Amino acid sequence: MSRVLTSRSENYSEWYNDLILKGGLADYSAVRGCMVIKPYGYGLWEGMRDALDKMFKDTGHQNAYFPLFVPKSLFEAEEKNAEGFAKECAVVTHYRLKTDPVNKGKLIVDPEAKLEEELVVRPTSEAIIWNTYKNWIQSYRDLPLLINQWANVVRWEMRTRLFLRTAEFLWQEGHTAHATKDEAVAETKQMLDVYARFAEEWMAMPVIRGVKSANERFAGAEDTYTIEAMMQDGKALQAGTSHFLGQNFAKAFEVTFADKNNTLEYVWATSWGVSTRLIGALVMAHSDDEGLVLPPRLAPVQVVIVPIYKGPDSKEAIDSRATALMLELQASGIRVKFDNDDTARPGWKFAEHELKGVPVRIALGLRDIENGVAEVARRDTKEKASMPLEGLAGKIQTMLVEIQQNIYNKALAFREAHTYKVDTWEEFMRRLDETPGFILAHWDGSPETEEEIKELSKATIRCIPLDAPEEEGACIRSGKPSKRRVLFARAY
Amino acid sequence: MSRVLTSRSENYSEWYNDLILKGGLADYSAVRGCMVIKPYGYGLWEGMRDALDKMFKDTGHQNAYFPLFVPKSLFEAEEKNAEGFAKECAVVTHYRLKTDPVNKGKLIVDPEAKLEEELVVRPTSEAIIWNTYKNWIQSYRDLPLLINQWANVVRWEMRTRLFLRTAEFLWQEGHTAHATKDEAVAETKQMLDVYARFAEEWMAMPVIRGVKSANERFAGAEDTYTIEAMMQDGKALQAGTSHFLGQNFAKAFEVTFADKNNTLEYVWATSWGVSTRLIGALVMAHSDDEGLVLPPRLAPVQVVIVPIYKGPDSKEAIDSRATALMLELQASGIRVKFDNDDTARPGWKFAEHELKGVPVRIALGLRDIENGVAEVARRDTKEKASMPLEGLAGKIQTMLVEIQQNIYNKALAFREAHTYKVDTWEEFMRRLDETPGFILAHWDGSPETEEEIKELSKATIRCIPLDAPEEEGACIRSGKPSKRRVLFARAY
Repeated sequence: MSRVLTSRSENYSEWYNDLILKGGLADYSAVRGCMVIKPYGYGLWEGMRDALDKMFKDTGHQNAYFPLFVPKSLFEAEEKNAEGFAKECAVVTHYRLKTDPVNKGKLIVDPEAKLEEELVVRPTSEAIIWNTYKNWIQSYRDLPLLINQWANVVRWEMRTRLFLRTAEFLWQEGHTAHATKDEAVAETKQMLDVYARFAEEWMAMPVIRGVKSANERFAGAEDTYTIEAMMQDGKALQAGTSHFLGQNFAKAFEVTFADKNNTLEYVWATSWGVSTRLIGALVMAHSDDEGLVLPPRLAPVQVVIVPIYKGPDSKEAIDSRATALMLELQASGIRVKFDNDDTARPGWKFAEHELKGVPVRIALGLRDIENGVAEVARRDTKEKASMPLEGLAGKIQTMLVEIQQNIYNKALAFREAHTYKVDTWEEFMRRLDETPGFILAHWDGSPETEEEIKELSKATIRCIPLDAPEEEGACIRSGKPSKRRVLFARAY
Repeated sequence: MSRVLTSRSENYSEWYNDLILKGGLADYSAVRGCMVIKPYGYGLWEGMRDALDKMFKDTGHQNAYFPLFVPKSLFEAEEKNAEGFAKECAVVTHYRLKTDPVNKGKLIVDPEAKLEEELVVRPTSEAIIWNTYKNWIQSYRDLPLLINQWANVVRWEMRTRLFLRTAEFLWQEGHTAHATKDEAVAETKQMLDVYARFAEEWMAMPVIRGVKSANERFAGAEDTYTIEAMMQDGKALQAGTSHFLGQNFAKAFEVTFADKNNTLEYVWATSWGVSTRLIGALVMAHSDDEGLVLPPRLAPVQVVIVPIYKGPDSKEAIDSRATALMLELQASGIRVKFDNDDTARPGWKFAEHELKGVPVRIALGLRDIENGVAEVARRDTKEKASMPLEGLAGKIQTMLVEIQQNIYNKALAFREAHTYKVDTWEEFMRRLDETPGFILAHWDGSPETEEEIKELSKATIRCIPLDAPEEEGACIRSGKPSKRRVLFARAY
């Protein structure tokens, strides 16, 4: 397969697909809308999962595992949640196949193995989990219950895109239960903050923290908090959400607890999740026309050593010095690969590792070794420099930190350059079409106006930023009064 | 819920269920045959997963993720595999629910959202994976392909038991592709060895390594290798299997590669897996009538510190010394919990931590601190000793290693005491009923005799042990000649 990518300016969407496929992150599968996550893409997910998992545990959460299937009667218990997901559910109706009496070697669904009650493949697990919490929660002593699950979920989307929107995806979903509203709201905000820190510190992806408008809330939530990131085409990507669920699920599943006065009260709930969609966000936030640009903290390989063999005599000396360097880097906690495949040329390898987004490449030839140096190239800036081999590990450590920071700064500068305060409808539409980005504009607060704006512009309210200052203004569409600007964008 | 367990001698099966439920490992769910893995049980699984994952990566494997669903046409491609799993498949037939026009607030399956082709929820992933490998393998340079997947699978079992046999379970499945038969066979054996080492070194559970008879092979395999462990009721538990799949899947999915001479050849395959069933094995191998006995290497909490408060004055001094001890133990890499809940009495806590199988308990009172000692109790032997606080961390480290070894030795001694060489049918039946365990006996090698023995005795051939010496003998059932003894047992 050719490693040349469609360029971003040529066709951003094709560039993204090319990069996912040629970068070895994922592949299409035989199942409509489902993808195969290839080892390199899964390596990114493992890095994300491990970092998030530690953040969840450091904030007192434990992991558990709940069933893949939700009986239909439980699924429909919380009406808004059911309504929100009913249209995209994979439904199991039978539990057996049998030999096809007509076509030899083929199987058919056994009509006698029809389930009494259909099972929904979980699109999200509030229903099955709250039906379980009912048995686990009796008294205030059982609260808070702070549980997270790493799992696959299925939403039968009609239009799918690798990582960004797939019928099956991997995610984590936190589901917590609390004695008071205040505590549940604080948990919702805490987890939004965990997501924001993860996005910024690990993915090097700046995010806007905000709260969704009523129209854009999670089905069954009282409030949905979100982090929104900007992609390089100026579109927004919702990167994580944290929901305050009020007592909706407690009421639907009759989950009560005896408080200290022995009065029965309904339990307060939150849920929060991020998914393999983050891999799509990571790719689109930083990568370029040569390939992936990965932040060092999540890169499966942080440094690659490429030997520059000149004839068979040089191989032994180079391999020996490169191996010593590899061990030195590993001892400094750096994830390093020595690419000693002698059937491929250095130029081919350079392009390959650029495509894969390896943050630092070290090229090592015989002359370099004689001079006590190596050629070090950064993936983010494409700068190359000859650096002394002695003490190189320490310098590479510093460089990885710099790269992480530089990638973040670049994304932040891009976002700032593409964020506009807009006060008229004409400018709103012009910006969206000509200089896509985030638009801070006044909105009258009504769902009707929000819907009208969406229909006319295809832009949605991404969030009401948590740090939005109060400011008197007039709605860009209706002209009615507004108290603060909200964030609009077209979105993935 | 009462923490008192049914005793093993009273009712082994109830003891097991009691322990799983009261020990907080798992719970029943609203979905027939599916369980909820509770945080403490999931903590055990995380420990197992991390240890195995490292062993897989150390042997060159990478993780990936393939779809949950297998289109029926792919599922039926490898006939034996399809036949083996067809009777226990959850089948997705529809992708949407809609509002029930008759019952308000209820949902029904939307008949207009019927899938053109039914999707099988994966009972195992050979079909979907080999259909993908077809696109990934062209030349010998693409081989070997060494991939593992951590996933959930569904097998619609009629009789289920927590962890041991559930409709949905978590597992890992390795799927490798090789250029030669020898290499694939070597991989199959290597992964059996990885499983055996994990069982013995991490779970402290001795296993017999062997190969299955043709009747007991995985559907679609040429050879199935197994590790078999003995539970405390003398029954066998198959703890992991590694399959040499020959070219069966390559032929079913037309997966060929060009060898060095540019000749097209079919690819050779292996697959291997262990599941959350191992948690059931761990529980049954070591635990006693007071609760779980966990090997230190997998125990989520290795050491618990229980303060013995005598009046409010003592709390501060004890908490301060206990916290210092906790930090000292943590600094030595020990997973430690300081149970400073002052609403529960020490006796209650002792019983609770015994139930949970925490390997070492340290009780600390004011008098102990004055004397510079603590009371240290081992879960495995129930020995208690007063030990100096100074240098305690080092002694606890040593003790954890001793406990790990002792648990293994005890399980090994139990197995040896319950393994019998048997030469007559009468003794075979008597042993199974009166002193259940492993029976090494001669078998004529025919599937018919194997089937007859199974029907008469409910015992199966667990494996032909890899180290079974050649020995002339006569089949215990048919009297026909036999070259070696095989391992019989009743099994989970």
